[in-house]
Amino acid sequence: MPETAGARGCPVQLPAVMTSEDLDAARQAGPACDLYEAIWRRRDVRGQFTGEPLAPEILDRILQAAHAAPSVGLSQPWDFVLVRDPELRLAFQRHVEEEREVFARTLTGPEAERFARIKIEGVMESTLSVVVTYDPRRGAPHVLGRHAIADAGLFSVCLAIQNLWLAATAEGLGLGWVSFYREPFVRRLLGIPEEVRPVAWLCLGPVTHLEAVPDLERAGWRSRLPLEAVVHHDTWEQVGAAPARYAGLVGRAPR
Amino acid sequence: MPETAGARGCPVQLPAVMTSEDLDAARQAGPACDLYEAIWRRRDVRGQFTGEPLAPEILDRILQAAHAAPSVGLSQPWDFVLVRDPELRLAFQRHVEEEREVFARTLTGPEAERFARIKIEGVMESTLSVVVTYDPRRGAPHVLGRHAIADAGLFSVCLAIQNLWLAATAEGLGLGWVSFYREPFVRRLLGIPEEVRPVAWLCLGPVTHLEAVPDLERAGWRSRLPLEAVVHHDTWEQVGAAPARYAGLVGRAPR
Repeated sequence: MPETAGARGCPVQLPAVMTSEDLDAARQAGPACDLYEAIWRRRDVRGQFTGEPLAPEILDRILQAAHAAPSVGLSQPWDFVLVRDPELRLAFQRHVEEEREVFARTLTGPEAERFARIKIEGVMESTLSVVVTYDPRRGAPHVLGRHAIADAGLFSVCLAIQNLWLAATAEGLGLGWVSFYREPFVRRLLGIPEEVRPVAWLCLGPVTHLEAVPDLERAGWRSRLPLEAVVHHDTWEQVGAAPARYAGLVGRAPR
Repeated sequence: MPETAGARGCPVQLPAVMTSEDLDAARQAGPACDLYEAIWRRRDVRGQFTGEPLAPEILDRILQAAHAAPSVGLSQPWDFVLVRDPELRLAFQRHVEEEREVFARTLTGPEAERFARIKIEGVMESTLSVVVTYDPRRGAPHVLGRHAIADAGLFSVCLAIQNLWLAATAEGLGLGWVSFYREPFVRRLLGIPEEVRPVAWLCLGPVTHLEAVPDLERAGWRSRLPLEAVVHHDTWEQVGAAPARYAGLVGRAPR
């Protein structure tokens, strides 16, 4: 990385030798946006898309960020289908509406009422959709690190999606993951091969703003848990506050 | 977010009202590290861990970043088991060695020789392990957005892992995802309930440096693909360079 990047304050040691990768990274550098700020400001957007156009170089930076994600055995098993065609998007949006009804029928009482007020997608309002898929054939048959965990490649695809989401946030855009759909429908709609699995339908584009609180929390659907509720120490049963031996410096070197 | 955060240059519009979440986020702000820089510098670390101690506030920022990930239906279905105990880690490390042999036996010729030189874990050299799990019971039975895609909760856990990975990178630490293990072994070792699925065993801690090129590429195992190979336009068959209608501004508003 060039000095200008290091000068932003990232405490990672700079490499002694500048590689072509470092230079590529520098060239692709987008607007400065602090990582923690992007993580905290990121939202799952439905109602704030403006539909304004998106410059190709911004889309390219976001996709490059996704493509820079880690993957099991360096298999990079993801693909990105950029869906701008209004007819394809409308067909998907109608399918989502049907699946909304399927879910709504499982609800009763206050839960049903709350769900009725929740917007679940912004397919037509957003600038474009990005469908992310998983191809288990890439790097096969000997994918290093996948022999014991068949889903490891699927996990890699999700890491790429989170890079994409944070990059979109850093670019001042909104992104919303729509999951009210059946995978075979999306496969047929976009001509995705049988062996390839659609993992996410993402709506992407400029927004009026990002909400400070998640939609589902604002709608009273569910509240966020405190971190303490999900942190365990050494074993599952030791949950919550750290035991005495975790006080002070964590992880004294074991040897 | 307070002005100091916005002043870093993130082009996201600031909310009109400061919420408690904004203030929390500001309080938890760690070292400034540009998002794109963190994405490009992140590596899957095996051989560079120093085993040095880790301040609890840094670990807390990293876990808070993971816990701020998006999740289907706001279910936050992840747990984090912090494993420092040397005996637990050694038992895991020995299991990984066995699984290494299982994979090695599937290889022959140059592939076998290359694999013999590749380090696959830094369990004992790193400061601590973080085991990330998926609990499908959280928010059930009516997880909004999961009725049609059973794995959507699993995907959420992976998004949290990528937040954790990037935050560790921003803090100047290394992280390595070990996947040479059987899930039932980890479940038994750490007393994880039958319904909960171990998703990742992560090694975390200070490092001497982060390599500029992934280990597997340096070892000649596999090279990274160009982005163009995995980008499609509207449908799967249109792969590679954008068609003419994608030139200029992408995603002209469809309506």
